[in-house]
Amino acid sequence: MEKLDRPLILVTNDDGITAPGIRTLIRWMNAIGDVVVMAPDSPQSGMGHAITLHDPLRCEPQQIDAGPQKEHSCSGTPVDCVKLAVHEVLDRRPDLIVSGINHGSNASVNVIYSGTMSAAVEGAMQGIPSIGFSILDYDWQADFSQAETLVMDVVRRVLSQGLPSGICLNVNIPKVSDKPYAGLKVCRQAQAKWVESFIKRNDHMGKPYYWMAGEFNDLDGREDTDIWALANNYLSVVPIQFDLTAHHHLAQIHQTLDA
Amino acid sequence: MEKLDRPLILVTNDDGITAPGIRTLIRWMNAIGDVVVMAPDSPQSGMGHAITLHDPLRCEPQQIDAGPQKEHSCSGTPVDCVKLAVHEVLDRRPDLIVSGINHGSNASVNVIYSGTMSAAVEGAMQGIPSIGFSILDYDWQADFSQAETLVMDVVRRVLSQGLPSGICLNVNIPKVSDKPYAGLKVCRQAQAKWVESFIKRNDHMGKPYYWMAGEFNDLDGREDTDIWALANNYLSVVPIQFDLTAHHHLAQIHQTLDA
Repeated sequence: MEKLDRPLILVTNDDGITAPGIRTLIRWMNAIGDVVVMAPDSPQSGMGHAITLHDPLRCEPQQIDAGPQKEHSCSGTPVDCVKLAVHEVLDRRPDLIVSGINHGSNASVNVIYSGTMSAAVEGAMQGIPSIGFSILDYDWQADFSQAETLVMDVVRRVLSQGLPSGICLNVNIPKVSDKPYAGLKVCRQAQAKWVESFIKRNDHMGKPYYWMAGEFNDLDGREDTDIWALANNYLSVVPIQFDLTAHHHLAQIHQTLDA
Repeated sequence: MEKLDRPLILVTNDDGITAPGIRTLIRWMNAIGDVVVMAPDSPQSGMGHAITLHDPLRCEPQQIDAGPQKEHSCSGTPVDCVKLAVHEVLDRRPDLIVSGINHGSNASVNVIYSGTMSAAVEGAMQGIPSIGFSILDYDWQADFSQAETLVMDVVRRVLSQGLPSGICLNVNIPKVSDKPYAGLKVCRQAQAKWVESFIKRNDHMGKPYYWMAGEFNDLDGREDTDIWALANNYLSVVPIQFDLTAHHHLAQIHQTLDA
């Protein structure tokens, strides 16, 4: 094992440093490179691309499992973890950032709310090849093992070939069923929408509080989407960009504002 | 004033319900429509598209300034505010969502970290025409008045003509100088990058903490960007989409994974 030839891999997530998903990803990445972990010290689901501007961050050395990885927990968001690791803790730029494996889907519009995927997007913004992984299984005992070969294949290919500038990958893994996975499917983010309903209750002082609940509506149904791929037992792979400009609408907005 | 013909306008922000920027926007919107405010009860800068999943939300009626607007503060993020207003508090769908006026730039990649813009993006995800406004002036005494005519023009045009499905507008306003504004410029998000440096100090117990600082690097310099428009005294208008798929890279990612 020639240490100097091994890639440096930064591992993070949004479920927190002790979640089974990140423990699995760390174990797998140890076989490929030198692993440094910088992950939230508590769950950060739904944090999107939030960063901590007005509070200090804490960072503690950790060793949750035995292994060669170097681990740190961070009091901030997943995006804070990437920034702190890249700009302060690591002594060289990582060759790859992997985030996850998230417990729960980040397909379709979920990517926008996801701390897991925002960490990968931040990696892309820093110019580092980055991949977010999620499994459609909230169970803490989720079976990740069936996805190992396909995940390792994606990681090895990205390490050897890189990714185009300005993008990262959003990989979602179906929940394990009695059928083996059908393979990888490169696809686009399905058009879909969360319709929220708030559960309103009164606390013991008689004051109301609201709890967000919601229902996911696939408005797409086409076969080139991540939702279709996952429903058909493929791991979905969507290239995600951080240029949010709707380039194909520039002309129309011109017209709206100049008319 | 025929009440029934007036549009319903939801106003939110990320600096909190008492910030001068939102108070200005509320005053302006009162001239156009029936205004309902649902804004964070405390500053939420840098919250991106974060949502509150694991805690209840509080929502309180408020009346910060005299006026016809109905106001509510919310304990959640800007995106929570939009969801709570649209799905729980409002008795009909708003005709328009405006967010801001943010104290500080949301041009270029700042859009990704911005709670102000994430509220507008969430509006677009809900299918409601939405606009985020920001001024390049952190001063709580910032002079908004010079932008009133141009902002009102954008709002009136969007109300009368709508916006294409799947997009919202990111409007940034230069800091007031001795020259009048040059007008509106429809443009794209400039390529740029934050390079963070963390300030490391020890607390009174001798334990280290890290504070995020950073420097904004414009890597673009072309004349069709928001950064150029703002530097040349234009209000920049960027159409922002929430489909994050890098459509123009689908073929290349196919190749990377199939080779």
